[in-house]
Amino acid sequence: MISEKMMQITENSSAIRAMFEEGKQMAAQFGAENVYDFSLGNPNVPAPAEVKAAIEEIIRGEDPLMVHGYMSNSGYEDVRAAIAACLNKRFATGFSEENILMTVGAAGGLNVILKTLLNPGDEVLTFAPYFGEYRAYVSNYDGVLKAVEPDTATFQPNLEKLAQMITPKTKAVIVNTPNNPTGVVYPEDTIVRMAKILRDKEEKFGISIYLISDEPYRELVYDDAFVPYLTKYYHNTIVGYSFSKSLSLPGERIGYLVIPDEADDSETIIKAASVANRILGYVNAPSLFQRVIAKCLDAKVDVAYYNRNRETLYEGLTKAGFSCIRPEGAFYLFMKSPIADESVFCETAKKYHLLLVPGSSFACPGFVRLAYCVTYETIVNALPHFAELAREYNL
Amino acid sequence: MISEKMMQITENSSAIRAMFEEGKQMAAQFGAENVYDFSLGNPNVPAPAEVKAAIEEIIRGEDPLMVHGYMSNSGYEDVRAAIAACLNKRFATGFSEENILMTVGAAGGLNVILKTLLNPGDEVLTFAPYFGEYRAYVSNYDGVLKAVEPDTATFQPNLEKLAQMITPKTKAVIVNTPNNPTGVVYPEDTIVRMAKILRDKEEKFGISIYLISDEPYRELVYDDAFVPYLTKYYHNTIVGYSFSKSLSLPGERIGYLVIPDEADDSETIIKAASVANRILGYVNAPSLFQRVIAKCLDAKVDVAYYNRNRETLYEGLTKAGFSCIRPEGAFYLFMKSPIADESVFCETAKKYHLLLVPGSSFACPGFVRLAYCVTYETIVNALPHFAELAREYNL
Repeated sequence: MISEKMMQITENSSAIRAMFEEGKQMAAQFGAENVYDFSLGNPNVPAPAEVKAAIEEIIRGEDPLMVHGYMSNSGYEDVRAAIAACLNKRFATGFSEENILMTVGAAGGLNVILKTLLNPGDEVLTFAPYFGEYRAYVSNYDGVLKAVEPDTATFQPNLEKLAQMITPKTKAVIVNTPNNPTGVVYPEDTIVRMAKILRDKEEKFGISIYLISDEPYRELVYDDAFVPYLTKYYHNTIVGYSFSKSLSLPGERIGYLVIPDEADDSETIIKAASVANRILGYVNAPSLFQRVIAKCLDAKVDVAYYNRNRETLYEGLTKAGFSCIRPEGAFYLFMKSPIADESVFCETAKKYHLLLVPGSSFACPGFVRLAYCVTYETIVNALPHFAELAREYNL
Repeated sequence: MISEKMMQITENSSAIRAMFEEGKQMAAQFGAENVYDFSLGNPNVPAPAEVKAAIEEIIRGEDPLMVHGYMSNSGYEDVRAAIAACLNKRFATGFSEENILMTVGAAGGLNVILKTLLNPGDEVLTFAPYFGEYRAYVSNYDGVLKAVEPDTATFQPNLEKLAQMITPKTKAVIVNTPNNPTGVVYPEDTIVRMAKILRDKEEKFGISIYLISDEPYRELVYDDAFVPYLTKYYHNTIVGYSFSKSLSLPGERIGYLVIPDEADDSETIIKAASVANRILGYVNAPSLFQRVIAKCLDAKVDVAYYNRNRETLYEGLTKAGFSCIRPEGAFYLFMKSPIADESVFCETAKKYHLLLVPGSSFACPGFVRLAYCVTYETIVNALPHFAELAREYNL
């Protein structure tokens, strides 16, 4: 009776979100302290103090009609100008407010740009493992998502396979570095080689291929890992940013798109993306939080907290006998399942009150994802349970 | 190169929004006090004091991880329960939190429910004149919007024509009362007759027809006009509500859907709508403002301010010789254009610094819309200019 597409999607709905609900039920049953929920990327490090101060300053000092009112669908000009200036300072780019479109988080931004770019049947490439929602986002606009097979040794993008998979129907490539679910960061030389491939294929097929950089984890990097700013390497780059993780505001739905002048058809895309923001029903990014983040562009959550979690978890799991990819960014750790069917492994882990997400949710079976945006105590207390789990598999 | 559908939509993009931008430019050129901008439904009555108090209370007293974090895609359970309880008290309904889905404003809610319901080619009916965005929302999911011709004497829904236009492909009917752009409220006997028609057609064709009630203006009514709660009259009613106007928070993007148990397939719809909320990229309604509105369910903006505007504007325009529909709700006044081509009339009005929206934007040429959510002074100062405009047309 209802949408057949939605029926299907609902039936296969996000394992991560299902686990979020299951985690809440288990916490109610066994006590929250006895459930080790590594399922959802919900930051546990609170928003920096600047956020609260900014909210108070704005609601006390600014006109409520302006703070809570409509503005241009693209967002407040002064907020967009502040973001452009901040990016220019950090990355020596040359953006103005015209290049910035405020969005309802990165998820909103990706939907806006895909709605803007895709014609039915257009192909979008991404690298497995990838955030499973990309499939739904591309399908929303009748595009076809094609995943480039992972290199399971390094989880760096498989560029040879990328080159083979680009066709005249390729409209976009989505990259996500620092990566969810692996935590790897793409080094500069990888970006340079990727840009060359894309440029060559653009020329060969006479098309534009947009590189969509999904960057919610840009600020969460460890050991001073360098995260190249992709617009500087490839002309047709569009950046989708979110403050969900950098300021621990995932529920507030605030982010932005960067559409550089040097992108093909940039003027048309900028205009159309603003209209897409409106007609997809976002209308505009939430107004108070547009103003809040403009005051917090130099603020940052306590990344050291995540780093301690990362080191303790990686060391503990490795010591227990698990095989893990060492994360360089984000707050995810990708671990090899000791058995081929990682869903069975995840079910077994639940016996030990450990909630892990099967790699199949990221088009990468045989692995599991742990979100370590949890309290340090959760990690410390979970490690003995992981050790027991390892013993069950004779690791 | 980009989406052909978006190219078209962008070219024909919202006249209202275009005028909003033009209004800003004119204000810069002539001074804000010399431009009488009746184009956009952007409330000018500030949010009630309870909103600021609620924000302060929440950011001081509640855990920031909870306030700004992810929650279920449907929204915080306690917020949804508070809304259900409020509705039950006001309208003697029997909702629980399961029936409430928090959305990114009413626009987000409409997109969620249309995504959930529509298969390509499904027909959605609405009554002209209607909020032009409905066309885009329905088109987003490859549905076909069909407008029932207006009764330009009363602007009450033309029920005979509705009955004629329902086919086995009809999936939904969108109503909007109090109405944008006419300000009329549908009386109870109209709702009763409409419900009977829908039930009869459901039975005749063996289908479910969902009545989608778009209710951003529910709280803005004058002279104690009664606005029936539609779920009480028709089993397949789904309500889309917004706090944009009732609490003057349009930029914050906060609203909800009501999906009653008595609706056909309600369990499936509730589940699918939550998934749609996620995959359309909203993820969830903004978290802080979910918590804010839960504390402000009994608060209300100063409706008396709008009422004074309404009376002064209606009286002034009528006296000047214009023919107007007397509004009973919302903050819009629908006025007959003295010439058939109301776009020309709107251009002429601009000479007098009067910004009006052509009725064609609402599929009702020959009329113009005035949004009187402006300062009282704007109305008083605009009236002499309307009088001059009337003289130009020998009214």
